[in-house]
Amino acid sequence: MANPKGMRDIPPELAILRKDVFSRLSKVFESFGFDPLETPIVELWSTLKGKYGEDAENKLIYAFKDKWGGRELALRYDLTVPLARFMSETQVPLPFKRYAIGRVYRHEEPQKGRYREFYQCDADIVGSSEPSADAEILSVIGKVMKEFKLPGYAVQVNDRRLLRGIFEKGLGINRNILRVYREIDKLDKVGWGKVRDELKQFVPVNTVRKIKDVIDISGGPFDVMEEVSCQFKGIPEVKSALKDLEEIFELTKKTKSRLNLSMVRGLDYYTGPIFETIVKEPKIGSITGGGRYDTLLGRYGKNLPATGTTIGVERLIDVGLELGIFKLKKTISQVYVVDLGAKEYAWRVAKMLREKNIPTRVDLMGRNWKKQLLEAEKMKITYVVLVGPKEEKKGEATVINKESGKKKIVKLIDLSKTIRNF
Amino acid sequence: MANPKGMRDIPPELAILRKDVFSRLSKVFESFGFDPLETPIVELWSTLKGKYGEDAENKLIYAFKDKWGGRELALRYDLTVPLARFMSETQVPLPFKRYAIGRVYRHEEPQKGRYREFYQCDADIVGSSEPSADAEILSVIGKVMKEFKLPGYAVQVNDRRLLRGIFEKGLGINRNILRVYREIDKLDKVGWGKVRDELKQFVPVNTVRKIKDVIDISGGPFDVMEEVSCQFKGIPEVKSALKDLEEIFELTKKTKSRLNLSMVRGLDYYTGPIFETIVKEPKIGSITGGGRYDTLLGRYGKNLPATGTTIGVERLIDVGLELGIFKLKKTISQVYVVDLGAKEYAWRVAKMLREKNIPTRVDLMGRNWKKQLLEAEKMKITYVVLVGPKEEKKGEATVINKESGKKKIVKLIDLSKTIRNF
Repeated sequence: MANPKGMRDIPPELAILRKDVFSRLSKVFESFGFDPLETPIVELWSTLKGKYGEDAENKLIYAFKDKWGGRELALRYDLTVPLARFMSETQVPLPFKRYAIGRVYRHEEPQKGRYREFYQCDADIVGSSEPSADAEILSVIGKVMKEFKLPGYAVQVNDRRLLRGIFEKGLGINRNILRVYREIDKLDKVGWGKVRDELKQFVPVNTVRKIKDVIDISGGPFDVMEEVSCQFKGIPEVKSALKDLEEIFELTKKTKSRLNLSMVRGLDYYTGPIFETIVKEPKIGSITGGGRYDTLLGRYGKNLPATGTTIGVERLIDVGLELGIFKLKKTISQVYVVDLGAKEYAWRVAKMLREKNIPTRVDLMGRNWKKQLLEAEKMKITYVVLVGPKEEKKGEATVINKESGKKKIVKLIDLSKTIRNF
Repeated sequence: MANPKGMRDIPPELAILRKDVFSRLSKVFESFGFDPLETPIVELWSTLKGKYGEDAENKLIYAFKDKWGGRELALRYDLTVPLARFMSETQVPLPFKRYAIGRVYRHEEPQKGRYREFYQCDADIVGSSEPSADAEILSVIGKVMKEFKLPGYAVQVNDRRLLRGIFEKGLGINRNILRVYREIDKLDKVGWGKVRDELKQFVPVNTVRKIKDVIDISGGPFDVMEEVSCQFKGIPEVKSALKDLEEIFELTKKTKSRLNLSMVRGLDYYTGPIFETIVKEPKIGSITGGGRYDTLLGRYGKNLPATGTTIGVERLIDVGLELGIFKLKKTISQVYVVDLGAKEYAWRVAKMLREKNIPTRVDLMGRNWKKQLLEAEKMKITYVVLVGPKEEKKGEATVINKESGKKKIVKLIDLSKTIRNF
């Protein structure tokens, strides 16, 4: 028996860590008052059809007919279209703030860190077209990054209207504009030299120079905004973008963010502010991505403005492990109670610890104490508690911290406290 | 756009509760040192084929061919076969104790409380044939039931060997034995009168009387065992079952369990002790079910003894709601900071509360304070914190508890504490 290609088991070691990461993410979202929403893994094919482009539709979406009525179904491809479906069917007070952490399915070629079944994690605000909603998304991103302490992260902010105002209206680039965006978006990754060489292939040299001038505008968000405001005065897209961005940056002063005029984001459905978090090391691209998408929900059902972000949980976990920020534990168990010939007492001691929510194992194999110790060692359990007839008589237990090597005999009543601070 | 039949969205109200229930269940399992294991939703059809009987295979399992290679896939039908597959492929230290809470798929006719996508929750111990492993499962069941405080629950214990020893060897019932088991299993639900009438259709009257005598054996587990031991001396199945049951009951004295000689459990794969928890009111059958299945894993891959239990989470949630043990909350948000004309201050106050993990909302719609109050009311948020220029100047905030009607002006530094105890 094997797994389907690209669909993996998450063994305890990894599952313990992942559950913890998901729970910490949930806590961050919930602190902002985002509520969980869960949608089915299985959607009607008609719900997904036409939403992701032809390539995804033919090559990536797991669509199938059920074998009974021949109803066309599909495994969900992301969490955004299900949100749109939910909003189109349900009456909820606005703004609707929801987060979702769940599995999605894509028939990609599996490779290191890429699976056909993986988790997405989204937080979105539906129903508000106010910049304060974007500011809240930016705050959420900031708090997530702070929570996981990824070193050298920077939250990049830009605005689709700003891009349009500057490059299309201001610099007058009309041909190949999407290609221009695609090239400048690579700036942080490949550097200006390479971007310039590419741009020169299809953009006049003096325009390339002008692009360089824009990209070179540097400083804090307010400096950049002032400079842009001077250089591109009178362009309505620039004006409205700057007005919103000012409010966003005002409301999120403590967030480590910068206005990056070369950041574009791939998806074409963004309509206003866009966000992306990159981590300097290791070079794995973005950890979060999102922005305002005021027309998307309308296309799918109900016409509602929306803004949000994806947290790249799979990448976050991979990066965190690579950087040593996350550690794998072989088991959730913290204590192994070794029975030296007082089984019922050992069980009583274990029960006491479990009632204090200290994950505790006892022998379930009829092993002698030496083999029990070996089991505890194999599972890399930190605390070993030894109890025999002698300990039972005195109402005591011997605690060993396997990491520090420390050993202590304590009264039962002090046991859980000892384990917490020993 | 709609959902596939029988696949529902879990809106925030319900999702908040369900997440909490799952997290409490996880905590119980983890306290015993059970580790999480996650397997894919999608399995190879060949993995599920031949495991659940013809009926399930043809009518209930979502099997399909992927549209690319024509690979035969299926949505998982339970969490046991994936565990068996995992064990057959993976080298892990024994005993392997894992829990899993996840979605499974069954093409049943949807009805109240029954969906085609629903959650199962299992805790299993693989690799031990010792009664102490069964005792631990019984302890887990007891702790789950205690955790959720379902009134009038009783954990029923029996043993497949005991059933065989008593009814087949002891009373000599050989024909229609499965039908006999099926009938006596209904005793708690329908009463003896009905069971007797059914039995009389295919069992000699004096055998029915003998069945009644067995079923009538009452008292604590040790009393019942003594009586059985006397009446069915010398039957090896009875002897070995009683030996194990004695150890199990010895080790779990504090668990509210009883030995119920008429409890059978439907699944035919159990080989030893079996467990079932019923709740008196409302009459919804069992909340947990499980037992020892020493030959099942061998049939599926690797020959390993195992014991475990399912917690009927969907039923637990339904019953908990029906009995008023669980309450629905419209939002996770506990606080709404109303901006009376000091927006940045309002955001600062919200930030402070969020840092204390108190779920807090602010206006994101550009609403005036009256409409903000209305929003807080609509969302049934308990605490309203009012801040305006006056409060900002003094570094204060006005807190209103909407449930008690109490109102208080506090310094910012005391705000989170006030909200926790006010």
